[in-house]
Amino acid sequence: MKTRLLLAIAALALPVPLLAQDGQAHDPAALQQKALGDNTAYSIVEDLTTEIGPRLAGTDREAAARTWAVDRLKAMGFANVRIEPFDMKTWVRGIETAEVTAPYSGNMHITALGNSASTGARGLEAQIVYFRTMADLEAAAAGSLKGKIAFVSHKMTRTQTGASYGQFGDVRRRGPNIAASKGAAAIIIRSVGTDYHRNPHTGGTNFAKDVTPIPAAALAIPDAENLERMITRAARDGKPVTMKLVLTPRQIGTTQSGNVIAEVPGSDPGAGMILIGGHLDSWDLGTGAVDDGAGVAISAAAAKLIMDAGTPKRTIRVVWWGAEEVGIFGGSAYAQKHGAAGHALAMESDFGAGRIWQVDFRLPETADGLKTKIANALAPMGIGRSNDVASGGPDHGPMVALGVNAIDLRQDGTDYFDLHHTPDDTLDKIDPQMLRQNVAAWATVLAIVANDPADLLPKPVPAK
Amino acid sequence: MKTRLLLAIAALALPVPLLAQDGQAHDPAALQQKALGDNTAYSIVEDLTTEIGPRLAGTDREAAARTWAVDRLKAMGFANVRIEPFDMKTWVRGIETAEVTAPYSGNMHITALGNSASTGARGLEAQIVYFRTMADLEAAAAGSLKGKIAFVSHKMTRTQTGASYGQFGDVRRRGPNIAASKGAAAIIIRSVGTDYHRNPHTGGTNFAKDVTPIPAAALAIPDAENLERMITRAARDGKPVTMKLVLTPRQIGTTQSGNVIAEVPGSDPGAGMILIGGHLDSWDLGTGAVDDGAGVAISAAAAKLIMDAGTPKRTIRVVWWGAEEVGIFGGSAYAQKHGAAGHALAMESDFGAGRIWQVDFRLPETADGLKTKIANALAPMGIGRSNDVASGGPDHGPMVALGVNAIDLRQDGTDYFDLHHTPDDTLDKIDPQMLRQNVAAWATVLAIVANDPADLLPKPVPAK
Repeated sequence: MKTRLLLAIAALALPVPLLAQDGQAHDPAALQQKALGDNTAYSIVEDLTTEIGPRLAGTDREAAARTWAVDRLKAMGFANVRIEPFDMKTWVRGIETAEVTAPYSGNMHITALGNSASTGARGLEAQIVYFRTMADLEAAAAGSLKGKIAFVSHKMTRTQTGASYGQFGDVRRRGPNIAASKGAAAIIIRSVGTDYHRNPHTGGTNFAKDVTPIPAAALAIPDAENLERMITRAARDGKPVTMKLVLTPRQIGTTQSGNVIAEVPGSDPGAGMILIGGHLDSWDLGTGAVDDGAGVAISAAAAKLIMDAGTPKRTIRVVWWGAEEVGIFGGSAYAQKHGAAGHALAMESDFGAGRIWQVDFRLPETADGLKTKIANALAPMGIGRSNDVASGGPDHGPMVALGVNAIDLRQDGTDYFDLHHTPDDTLDKIDPQMLRQNVAAWATVLAIVANDPADLLPKPVPAK
Repeated sequence: MKTRLLLAIAALALPVPLLAQDGQAHDPAALQQKALGDNTAYSIVEDLTTEIGPRLAGTDREAAARTWAVDRLKAMGFANVRIEPFDMKTWVRGIETAEVTAPYSGNMHITALGNSASTGARGLEAQIVYFRTMADLEAAAAGSLKGKIAFVSHKMTRTQTGASYGQFGDVRRRGPNIAASKGAAAIIIRSVGTDYHRNPHTGGTNFAKDVTPIPAAALAIPDAENLERMITRAARDGKPVTMKLVLTPRQIGTTQSGNVIAEVPGSDPGAGMILIGGHLDSWDLGTGAVDDGAGVAISAAAAKLIMDAGTPKRTIRVVWWGAEEVGIFGGSAYAQKHGAAGHALAMESDFGAGRIWQVDFRLPETADGLKTKIANALAPMGIGRSNDVASGGPDHGPMVALGVNAIDLRQDGTDYFDLHHTPDDTLDKIDPQMLRQNVAAWATVLAIVANDPADLLPKPVPAK
């Protein structure tokens, strides 16, 4: 009797699974208010960064994060919580030191880039050849770098949109392959970042199949500028600058990664599901708070607000992606396995936890009414509508390429590249109030799209 | 003939050594204007941080800095440039790593404190005992820390004056000795700093003669806060947190340090000299730009402005002090060798390169007119007069204790403890315009004091 009574009380306290008629249960303004007082997202990123910490793709730490994620998503009440595993080639960091040996001296703060080769434990000492920009490196004669360490500088611009990562990130993405193809023994770059701390920015690079990988690393920005000053002075005296590099990362072969999936089942499976998420893996230097603990937290917290308010028409599928940083392996594995069919929309949060200030759409012309509804609901939050075409986020790129619609809630990234891929990506960089603003914007969009009558099912992409 | 002509032209280009009557050659307002357009200080700190870099007291790098300093001060035209050497006991850094081993995992950014003992290369793994404040550590029972790692947190306050370094610095200065005396195997502290970067703050500590030194190190602030979160969570589950520490610093015995001295000879040796400077040694983690490349640069640049304008009445003695960071060994050696006699005033710059906003005096009552003259000349720069008693700066403490007068030009230190004793103390943190404002204020004070008729010779300090 007593037990029955307790169960009855417990049932009353549970969120009532309303069958919403056109989203009556999901009033955007009410959800915004609720989100602005909700600490769910912050507690996810706090727990993830404290209990798991760094979680490099393909490693035991990423696996520990998946186990943690399944427990957390189940505890939050999501349905169909599961891992979809996939295999990947995995690279891990080793020792990393850099020391100017002549004509000056000094240790420099450096970090290997993903897929960097090793110098061996004894290291490599060589003359530095300086390139002020990526274009200068590209213009170097074939073979001219034989036995040398190429050093590419390249000052990145701070922007709200993060647009400059496209251009300046190229030094990291393509520079090592170019230097290797010109015979360099190693390459060091000025970190792709906008801060002035002794924290180098890592990130992935790739070598072409016919190019032998070389050691490739990034200097912290104060170190890169000091090295430039040394090079300028030494050149005046006609002297080369030499550096000793020790970098011992390794390719450890094939290991397992995976995507963690959780769902808010909708009342109308035929309307297509909404795919949302962030990536669970992080670079190994920080604890992955802004990249992308924030993204997994924001997307799941918003989905939970919808779930707790009632059953939406469309299913919301939350995916915490694996192995994004090292090549969007999780997003590619998912697209290959599932295809576009049945996916109405994709939204990802993977640009930190700054204030959302703009919404971009990639929706069919027949959904113009939906765009207006969303823009009007976001406007009171100071979020403007743009004419930019939404990307859907890095992990959803393969799905968007297959014709899936997308909406981007754009975060203010002015400070994002101070932290991106550095040891400094830690919990203290997240402003809880900004995180709640993100969740409020996400809940607003989900409340509308999850119940909208527009036909959002993907149309076959015409063959080229 | 040709040579003679060239010499004559060269002589015309040299600063004319005017014999100033009451400082007519040293108009404060004119010197302020000149200083605000003068790049001398910035070029000193740029060259020192680039060509020498870190210069830990007692090491070869500090010796290299002295050689560099003698060349530089001679090239600037100072007289009687020389080194006054002294012996000291020297400590050097080794490997330093920290890893949480249970119930969570993760590498933490850590650095040994000066005079820390070594854990040995194999390291030390032990349970952490957490103290929220220094007072809590002091209250721990004797023997209660046996075999444990004490962890003391203690959040430092950001202030313009730097006053909170007094209280919060105590964790670093006295904490290790207290922990050792209670039987701790090691101590880690939250860095004494105000930033949120993964750059731990080093600094000196001391052990009493009857206390065996233990490994003592500081965690970067984000790491300290993460460790606190781990401890809180683990305590909820009744679990201890364990850490593996590897710290291998060494005491290398007696080595040589020294003070570098340079002078602007005055026309009236009987009026007493003005002792100014900053310290040449730096901690080894950064390149010693704000602590204290800025100070040596500001003091010397201001003295050069005076020298170039004409001969002052009082001699100005510039001292770039050795071994300040590890115990004010240079200042003590100087006071012991020279005593107070013949020293009219002491002024040091050792608080970065922030804007000067206040002037403090320690002058005899008979010099009230001098104070007013100085305050009136600084007022147009927005520098206010205070009732605080000037300290003369750390290196001049031993001289001030002997009765030497002092003036402090107080810098804005709001951001100083973001950088203090960290790898982040690099050239890019210095704002050239603020540095020039410092030189302008210094030149103003020197122009007045160096020519003032007041009797500033030290009076014997009464025996207690």
